[in-house]
Amino acid sequence: MRMYDIIKRKRDGFELTEEEIQFVVNGYVSGAIPDYQMAALLMAIFFKGMNQRETFDLTMSMARSGEMIDLSPIEGIKVDKHSTGGVGDKTTFVVLPLVTGFDVKSAKMSGRGLGHTGGTIDKIESVPGMRTELSQDEFFEIVRKVGFAIISQTGNLVPADKKIYALRDTTATVDNISLIASSIVSKKLAAGADAIIFDVKVGSGAFLKSVDEAKQLAKLMIEILRKSGKLARAVLSDMSQPLGKMVGNSLEVIEAIETLKGKGPSDLTKLCVHISRKLLDLVGIVVSEEEIYKEISSGKALERFARFLEAQGGNPKVIEDYSLLPASEKIVEVKASRSGYVSAIDTEAVGVASVVLGAGRSKKEDSIDPRVGIEVLKKVGDSVHLNEPLVRMYVSEKSDVQLAIRLITHAYTISDEIAKPREIIIEVIE
Amino acid sequence: MRMYDIIKRKRDGFELTEEEIQFVVNGYVSGAIPDYQMAALLMAIFFKGMNQRETFDLTMSMARSGEMIDLSPIEGIKVDKHSTGGVGDKTTFVVLPLVTGFDVKSAKMSGRGLGHTGGTIDKIESVPGMRTELSQDEFFEIVRKVGFAIISQTGNLVPADKKIYALRDTTATVDNISLIASSIVSKKLAAGADAIIFDVKVGSGAFLKSVDEAKQLAKLMIEILRKSGKLARAVLSDMSQPLGKMVGNSLEVIEAIETLKGKGPSDLTKLCVHISRKLLDLVGIVVSEEEIYKEISSGKALERFARFLEAQGGNPKVIEDYSLLPASEKIVEVKASRSGYVSAIDTEAVGVASVVLGAGRSKKEDSIDPRVGIEVLKKVGDSVHLNEPLVRMYVSEKSDVQLAIRLITHAYTISDEIAKPREIIIEVIE
Repeated sequence: MRMYDIIKRKRDGFELTEEEIQFVVNGYVSGAIPDYQMAALLMAIFFKGMNQRETFDLTMSMARSGEMIDLSPIEGIKVDKHSTGGVGDKTTFVVLPLVTGFDVKSAKMSGRGLGHTGGTIDKIESVPGMRTELSQDEFFEIVRKVGFAIISQTGNLVPADKKIYALRDTTATVDNISLIASSIVSKKLAAGADAIIFDVKVGSGAFLKSVDEAKQLAKLMIEILRKSGKLARAVLSDMSQPLGKMVGNSLEVIEAIETLKGKGPSDLTKLCVHISRKLLDLVGIVVSEEEIYKEISSGKALERFARFLEAQGGNPKVIEDYSLLPASEKIVEVKASRSGYVSAIDTEAVGVASVVLGAGRSKKEDSIDPRVGIEVLKKVGDSVHLNEPLVRMYVSEKSDVQLAIRLITHAYTISDEIAKPREIIIEVIE
Repeated sequence: MRMYDIIKRKRDGFELTEEEIQFVVNGYVSGAIPDYQMAALLMAIFFKGMNQRETFDLTMSMARSGEMIDLSPIEGIKVDKHSTGGVGDKTTFVVLPLVTGFDVKSAKMSGRGLGHTGGTIDKIESVPGMRTELSQDEFFEIVRKVGFAIISQTGNLVPADKKIYALRDTTATVDNISLIASSIVSKKLAAGADAIIFDVKVGSGAFLKSVDEAKQLAKLMIEILRKSGKLARAVLSDMSQPLGKMVGNSLEVIEAIETLKGKGPSDLTKLCVHISRKLLDLVGIVVSEEEIYKEISSGKALERFARFLEAQGGNPKVIEDYSLLPASEKIVEVKASRSGYVSAIDTEAVGVASVVLGAGRSKKEDSIDPRVGIEVLKKVGDSVHLNEPLVRMYVSEKSDVQLAIRLITHAYTISDEIAKPREIIIEVIE
């Protein structure tokens, strides 16, 4: 088998065999296939696509390229939740304490932020003392005891994805549904859960801008997971404006805690409850929305979150005293340049503004500042007066405040007519 | 300017600017742009193409990536001839002695063979003593004195093409008209002639199998050359069977000499005379076919060829005594498996057979054997009896004779009906 022939066959629109796909993945990981041949193949895939069978084979080959976590030492049903990435997305911190109140467990691996979306690991590390690198024994023990734990991805999980993704990122071959699906699903397979719910974000702050694309991706990911013997479902949710009000690391942790106290923003609360219910239903646990809300009102979910923090070395007192969390005291408001109604928010620009303040990374090597971020005061549909603040920015001496102001100002569209915001839950894909 | 954005723009079907194309070529030659990004761009170009303007800019950037030969120290009109490659193509050795009898000069740079087509330099080096690496002074002096000289391409000519071609060759991005045209024309521009005639081969032994593709390529190359201030024209010629009868290095030199003596095969003679006439006409020298044939019958062209050999260190006596040329005495015939008429010859397979005998290279590092080759006894339209020889193979102890026999046997299609061979000259593109 020769890589040249495989490139040529894909270039000419032929379906690659399972053997060819394995040859490519194994050869690329081992270094036998050079970057330039892989880049040519990825661009051919960009143009000619892969069918479901090829995408499945690619995903399986990638998942098997490194360690596959075996969660069987943990009793019970292990669930996972995956967001395709958005601005202000702190659902994990709410959903995991909620669902683990209903006889499921979650041994969650998360990533750090890159580009305009934040990372779960960066956010939870705002809590003083929090450790996200645990041995497998300790990780499993916390999941058994608390119900869930969140650690950063280990080095040996899906090396094929790391290497392929880095190449796609520099060769303009990211935007292909089969390559996207295989990247996400291979990591979910390696992480070992029995059931996975996807939160597929759609809109100006998501990488998928249209509902159609999001649906296609959701269906493909579900299909691959089912074929590999897993349960899977997806919720398409709105990302045409930031989720909740807070964007930034410690700010988002505070908002998640507020939501677990029943005082969170309605869009975030609604989404978390819905995802939780659909995830439980997926594994055969039928509960009403009321029962899930009761986990919040009873304080049980909050208590579980506190135990999770404590188990991973974090200070559980942050729950009652937000001053224990790092916070910037320097505040800059961005004001409306006219009166009217907020009709649209370029949410990616809000994400980029949070990065230039210091809350995220534009390059992998960048460090993040947990104290800074953006509080979104005006959302789509809100009325606004000239000079009324649109957002409150928590800044540091390193923040590029002027650029952030420009980004936010341009991100808001203010019109004369009242705009109706999109519903937070767009559709459920079974 | 970022290579990533250039790849993405081409991927999305946009026209690249002159600045972008220069950035790519210079960056790739300098090493600032890595192979994998170039490979992704080449595959995007494969799918989205380049328009004439982009192809022109690419060609100019490539031509300027290294040394550009200045032929102005040689007085008079300097012409060049380029064949896109075929099997048994020894036209250069006939055309140059012919045209330089009519007040033009040719300072020709040629390449070595790779794959199923042979190389002019390999062929002429069959002549004992022949030197093809000359200093520029010596090269120019021979052109002035004899009318023409043939040297192998120097190291510093169009480094961009060397690097890009090597990458295309391993990433299945050779077959794109803009990339093919820029590769050929950039070398012609760097070689410095005032007027270029292309011999664009079409058929089973050429890399272009259809007349339409050949026409497109010819028109594009002519257009680029004209835009850069050169005269250019193309002859589309048949390569659905080997040209002449001889395939192999010293065998082809002998056939060229025979043709210069007026005893060559009719297809080869006709093509050489036609190309010569069209090339002279291109630079404003109008001569009849008769006048060109007279160069042959008078012995002047042959004499000029002898002087060329002598000037470059070769033994001019080979013209009268072919035994001075290396020749294999071991002969193997491939016989017809049935009676009938030769209706088609897979000419690429004949070329590959000559390679496995030792006359060509499958890899750059391979050495060639000037003594071996194939004499084509039966051509399209010829009648043949069972067990009558189709070809005579001149083999060595290193030849893979069995494979060559199989290749030749399969290359010949013998039918019951008489087949009419295609005319050697298909069309002239002005």
